[in-house]
Amino acid sequence: MSNVGDLAREARKAARRLAPLGRREKDGALAAIAGRLRGAAAEIGAANATDVERARATGLSEPMIDRLGMGPHVVEATARAVEHIITLPDPVGGRREMQRMPNGIYVGRQRVPLGVIAIVYEARPNVTVDAASLGLKSGNALLLRGGKEASETNTVLGRIIQEALRESAVPEGAVQIVPAGDREETRELLGLTDLVDLVIPRGGEGLIRFVAENARVPVVKHYKGVCHLFLDAGCDSQMAVRLALNGKVQRPGVCNALECLLVDERAAVELLPRVAAALLGAGVELRGCPRTVALVPEAKIATDADWGAEFLSLVLAVRVVAGIDEALEHVAQHGSNHTETICTNDHAHAERWLQEVDASAVMVNASTRFNDGGQFGLGAEIGISTSKLHAYGPMGLESLTTEKWIVLGSGQVRE
Amino acid sequence: MSNVGDLAREARKAARRLAPLGRREKDGALAAIAGRLRGAAAEIGAANATDVERARATGLSEPMIDRLGMGPHVVEATARAVEHIITLPDPVGGRREMQRMPNGIYVGRQRVPLGVIAIVYEARPNVTVDAASLGLKSGNALLLRGGKEASETNTVLGRIIQEALRESAVPEGAVQIVPAGDREETRELLGLTDLVDLVIPRGGEGLIRFVAENARVPVVKHYKGVCHLFLDAGCDSQMAVRLALNGKVQRPGVCNALECLLVDERAAVELLPRVAAALLGAGVELRGCPRTVALVPEAKIATDADWGAEFLSLVLAVRVVAGIDEALEHVAQHGSNHTETICTNDHAHAERWLQEVDASAVMVNASTRFNDGGQFGLGAEIGISTSKLHAYGPMGLESLTTEKWIVLGSGQVRE
Repeated sequence: MSNVGDLAREARKAARRLAPLGRREKDGALAAIAGRLRGAAAEIGAANATDVERARATGLSEPMIDRLGMGPHVVEATARAVEHIITLPDPVGGRREMQRMPNGIYVGRQRVPLGVIAIVYEARPNVTVDAASLGLKSGNALLLRGGKEASETNTVLGRIIQEALRESAVPEGAVQIVPAGDREETRELLGLTDLVDLVIPRGGEGLIRFVAENARVPVVKHYKGVCHLFLDAGCDSQMAVRLALNGKVQRPGVCNALECLLVDERAAVELLPRVAAALLGAGVELRGCPRTVALVPEAKIATDADWGAEFLSLVLAVRVVAGIDEALEHVAQHGSNHTETICTNDHAHAERWLQEVDASAVMVNASTRFNDGGQFGLGAEIGISTSKLHAYGPMGLESLTTEKWIVLGSGQVRE
Repeated sequence: MSNVGDLAREARKAARRLAPLGRREKDGALAAIAGRLRGAAAEIGAANATDVERARATGLSEPMIDRLGMGPHVVEATARAVEHIITLPDPVGGRREMQRMPNGIYVGRQRVPLGVIAIVYEARPNVTVDAASLGLKSGNALLLRGGKEASETNTVLGRIIQEALRESAVPEGAVQIVPAGDREETRELLGLTDLVDLVIPRGGEGLIRFVAENARVPVVKHYKGVCHLFLDAGCDSQMAVRLALNGKVQRPGVCNALECLLVDERAAVELLPRVAAALLGAGVELRGCPRTVALVPEAKIATDADWGAEFLSLVLAVRVVAGIDEALEHVAQHGSNHTETICTNDHAHAERWLQEVDASAVMVNASTRFNDGGQFGLGAEIGISTSKLHAYGPMGLESLTTEKWIVLGSGQVRE
């Protein structure tokens, strides 16, 4: 069986049986997955070696090959990640706010799984296990469609997961590996409105755009992280240096890294050369507005394309602005609703920033790098959403669930 | 200006200014709208008369013409509905769970408007005012695209709302009436992914399918309400009669009306004739499975198309099932995730129903007719969602908002 629709129907069937299961059953399945992963490290490594070899032959870039790798250390880390998910509370089943209405009925909400979640991702086979574990813990069945570069590895991982489920209370059909074929199959998957409740694309902007443009089922996604730091007049200059450096340099290739620095013109003359020196010293290329270049001769002049660009490397756009209004305007125009932070000592400005910036995480005096499920205490993260519907920001287990209404009566009818 | 994209850009601009406004400003705008509506009752009536006349000439059905009507009584009721929304708490701005993390940053959530919401609806001009009021109260800008049958009325209502906004703190551009043209324009609206955060279709299944199939922006919708009542073995027979009658007869044309009755075979012989007699006495046409027809000779034999049908009239499908498992299976197969209720005296069965049924409202011993924002204490309702993402069930003001993360630091960086 490999038709996408058939796999989805199997997942849907399993989802019904999985949804009411309690934590003990789901954690039991996760423990079985972790155990079997460790036991199959050699087998996984062999399949992965085939994928890596093939990828090298087709000229895949070294960073991509690095992500594709699943040697014994990655298997162990993946098994540990599964065991970490076991320690998290069950996001499903809780009832809240059972309100007694005037006619005596109780009305409240119960948290339930979404049902069937499809994950479309690239050549990172550990995502297969991560997504399966988070999905199962939250009571969902999964359709996992990874990159074709990882297809040997994913096939083995899929089999291992299904074997583990077979010895657990979770129905085996709850995790379905969609064979990585061409985009037509993905398009078919994205159109299964009666069978799939949510699709989460994980990968580069190209993949995410393809999913967003072709999906008839709901999508939660983020395209890119164009994060800004605004240095307000009167801010602490040491803090400004620290936040700029951490945002840009600590891990430049991730979505919550800093891409643009905005500086109040009243602070620029003194502050900007200091901040720039620190960044230049860390190997950062600066692309500035004319006023920036006048203050920092090492900076290149920015082009229009640099505002709103996601560099994902040691490049930073820098602009001097007239004040917080222009900073807010710049962020509204060029930001990507991901993470925006202000460095300020002005309470009213801090509050305006919090109120007026539309982003999944809005920060005062903190590094953009904190926008992360782990840092926010979610325990585990399936992604960061910059869509506003359903989830905005890091998505933990709760983002894979919804709430239904429940009503307890004693025969009441509507008048 | 009537290009859909231009209107959406105006709305987006207004949304930024509207989002941080407090309750006083928003309620002030609503009061101005209510006042101006009353003052313009004659003008609205005149425009509406033109619409109604034109609709009659084109042969629109009487129930449709009834919904299109906006005489002085409807204007007054609409103004009162706006005033009711003024009494509701502001859904926006609240901060919750500001957790202090080990490194000293505070991390929490702040409830914020979605941004720009498009409502696509049919020939009910009061929706123009209802949707505008709910949208503004929740801090959103609106694109309102009503049916072309109501275009004269909607044009006048749009002007009245914008005049009211001009004398308030809410930017005038926050409510945009999209001229009712052909479906091409609606399709354009549904593709404005950078400008529109959510589209809510309100109307018949045809409209909703058109929106769902053509939208590139997120949609929250419900197609239909195929609601079931399962009469369990040992249930209270008087309660069974009451719930069946209320579900089917009280208002058969609405989405939370009952469409199918399931009866446990152990109860059927005694119970089904009693329930059927009451329904037949109220003028209901019964379409039953062979076992039903054997017990109730007045029932017609059901065809396959009757299971899962949304009759919206005094027709009810009736089926005898082997027990709760078969009832759950029937609901999973034929239900529409809207409202499902069990009449039972068995506690374990009540719990299984609550756990296992996947619907926006799952009920025990209560009429399906209770699935309604007013009945659930939401104060006002913009629709009922049977999509699971973002909102599942009646959508009140909170469903028009989302939560962003906020972080308060004192210079912390990621290690």
